[in-house]
Amino acid sequence: MQAEIITIGDEILIGQIVDTNSAWIGQQLNAIGISLKQISSIADSAADITTALSLTSGRADLILVTGGLGPTKDDVTKQALAAYFGCGLHRDPEVLAHVQAIFSRSGRPMLEANRKQADVLDICEVLFNQTGTAPGMWVTYKRKHYIVMPGVPHEMKHIMTERVLPRLQQMEQRQPIWHHTMLTAGIGESFLSEQIADIEAALPAHIRLAYLPKPGMVRLRLTATGDDMERLQNETRSIVSQIRQRIGKHFMGDGDITLESLILNFMKRHGLTLATAESCTGGNIAHLITSIPGSSSVFEGAAVTYSNAVKERLLGVKTETIELYGAVSEETVREMAQGAQQRFQVDYAVAVTGIAGPDGGTPEKPVGLVWIAVAGKNGVTVQKHLFGQERNINIERASMAALFMLWECMNAELDIRLI
Amino acid sequence: MQAEIITIGDEILIGQIVDTNSAWIGQQLNAIGISLKQISSIADSAADITTALSLTSGRADLILVTGGLGPTKDDVTKQALAAYFGCGLHRDPEVLAHVQAIFSRSGRPMLEANRKQADVLDICEVLFNQTGTAPGMWVTYKRKHYIVMPGVPHEMKHIMTERVLPRLQQMEQRQPIWHHTMLTAGIGESFLSEQIADIEAALPAHIRLAYLPKPGMVRLRLTATGDDMERLQNETRSIVSQIRQRIGKHFMGDGDITLESLILNFMKRHGLTLATAESCTGGNIAHLITSIPGSSSVFEGAAVTYSNAVKERLLGVKTETIELYGAVSEETVREMAQGAQQRFQVDYAVAVTGIAGPDGGTPEKPVGLVWIAVAGKNGVTVQKHLFGQERNINIERASMAALFMLWECMNAELDIRLI
Repeated sequence: MQAEIITIGDEILIGQIVDTNSAWIGQQLNAIGISLKQISSIADSAADITTALSLTSGRADLILVTGGLGPTKDDVTKQALAAYFGCGLHRDPEVLAHVQAIFSRSGRPMLEANRKQADVLDICEVLFNQTGTAPGMWVTYKRKHYIVMPGVPHEMKHIMTERVLPRLQQMEQRQPIWHHTMLTAGIGESFLSEQIADIEAALPAHIRLAYLPKPGMVRLRLTATGDDMERLQNETRSIVSQIRQRIGKHFMGDGDITLESLILNFMKRHGLTLATAESCTGGNIAHLITSIPGSSSVFEGAAVTYSNAVKERLLGVKTETIELYGAVSEETVREMAQGAQQRFQVDYAVAVTGIAGPDGGTPEKPVGLVWIAVAGKNGVTVQKHLFGQERNINIERASMAALFMLWECMNAELDIRLI
Repeated sequence: MQAEIITIGDEILIGQIVDTNSAWIGQQLNAIGISLKQISSIADSAADITTALSLTSGRADLILVTGGLGPTKDDVTKQALAAYFGCGLHRDPEVLAHVQAIFSRSGRPMLEANRKQADVLDICEVLFNQTGTAPGMWVTYKRKHYIVMPGVPHEMKHIMTERVLPRLQQMEQRQPIWHHTMLTAGIGESFLSEQIADIEAALPAHIRLAYLPKPGMVRLRLTATGDDMERLQNETRSIVSQIRQRIGKHFMGDGDITLESLILNFMKRHGLTLATAESCTGGNIAHLITSIPGSSSVFEGAAVTYSNAVKERLLGVKTETIELYGAVSEETVREMAQGAQQRFQVDYAVAVTGIAGPDGGTPEKPVGLVWIAVAGKNGVTVQKHLFGQERNINIERASMAALFMLWECMNAELDIRLI
């Protein structure tokens, strides 16, 4: 089965937003063996929508349409679809009740534009949207399937996950495909690729390896296609185990996991508590950790100590230390980690101080210089890093490096190794 | 002049990477008055590339092609282009010398695949790539312009900025186009649209209004097209001023700004300092603020107080307060804000406590309940919010609501109004 995506919205074409929906949909379809042939991003224009629908229908059996379902006048998707299918729109009572409930819950007044959100194509099956006011729609027309969804990412994901993917999985014509993703950290992409070059070179033609680098980590993804799913799984498993053995401590885990969720689960299992003391990362590590449901059983809190005075007041860093060595130094980061461990009364405290840029660099302490410390059961470990010039990349890389260092320390101290 | 983008690469279609290039190119073209009609993402397949080229050439005068220029086997863009244009490829000596220099600098061995990077289309003009091994190419064929670039973002941006955009700016047939973006906050999309319905209805046909909502804020974008740029600017200015007057305090500012940068600039101008005390937002507000260069002149720090003990220890919240009213309560958030203001010694402190979900809700205190307080010059203001079910959306909405409340407080207390 071939699929295509049509994303509708002027904001994509003038670059005001990046289309992250299509990549997510592509991943999901791929995981269930449906291949995506093309993604077309077009304007909020009825004529362009019609052209795209007719071209896409000539190439694919499954057409996913996102965007342009909002309550405002610039959203023309529903009208264009109705014209294309030659059908009308009607107000769905169940969706209307849902929209009304959302408004009464929040106490906001409900307007005619909001009621219109409940209008759906006459020939569609409604894909109920628990998370917002615009429902999804499934239309089967001339033996092709059209799935229409709002462009708001969490609403689209909800409709896909709850209503669309389970049904697609039951449809025929899917090619057996098996993916295995691994998370690696603390090792760069090219160094990683060099280390496993022979394993990669020996891969059979039906198994592909992809590198998915992000600041501070690299995901590896094996994709195997063939007729026999069990064989694909066995082959993949054997390659994964070769890679694990080769890269050792840099192998973090299987699946589409994150470093922070891995650490959180590990600490939860071992009854450990955590706090962070963050200067240049500005609360990003705390934010990453607290984005995970259930993090409160491990995470006590963070001190984001941007100014020197606050480093002293909240973490007990000594005035002399900062005067003598500076805020970005081995000595300061050490006292930050110790201070956080004591004041938050936690098993592990991670501290970061550095120069994120673009300003604040000097010849001895350039932009990108970051000190990281982990206070654990056996004292404090300190590391120095030199990242790049870009502020936000530096914040991300420092956060990842700090999490990897915490992981390393816990493994060393607790003498627990995954491999 | 109408433009289209073709991005080539399996990794986009299986969702392994998000296409950020197209949004960037869209922005750049838009800024110089070239409108983008469509973005098509296709596979590394010669047949699909040919089809896309022929469809795109029928709709646009300027075709930007990115991706598939790498040294590996799966990259077929150059061969497909040569077949489409009916020309050959030849090795460019200047590019070859550049590739050789890159390899000799890094000490890596150079392979035939790397030498092939210097092969270019016979009918192209080479767009020299200082930052990598794959050169860009400019082809003029049947009065259409084709610009072929590598997919690596920083290489594409280098070629666009240095070689392509300056030339496009000198070409004729650009349609004068003028954009004006405004940021609004503290008001929902449909309520906003209702408030300005008559202004929107009265827009002339050549001016369009778009709503770009994100959790907690809505951007409005006016796009005017016509022949006379000065007239477009004047017309837009008059509409902007009508909208400003209509929505009053919800108008935050002009341009593609964020709420946090607006606040930071405002506080910097008035010599004010800021700290946050965050429970359910987990450091996200601090992270948003510290992502902005120069934030250290305003932002002293944050206390991310996830546990009750830390709320008491770091912020001085009274044990009785938490026992009597709970951690998510008006009384606790008030003491958090006061504690942060005192301990960080700042002019303004923002505090947030709530139930982000998915767990931790009760009938009286459901998931989505968030208390926000701002401690300012004249005491503490407190607000209660009821957001939705999704953890990460709740964190985002609570962060935006807190920033908007801070903005409101500062404006009220300092008696400074933008309008």
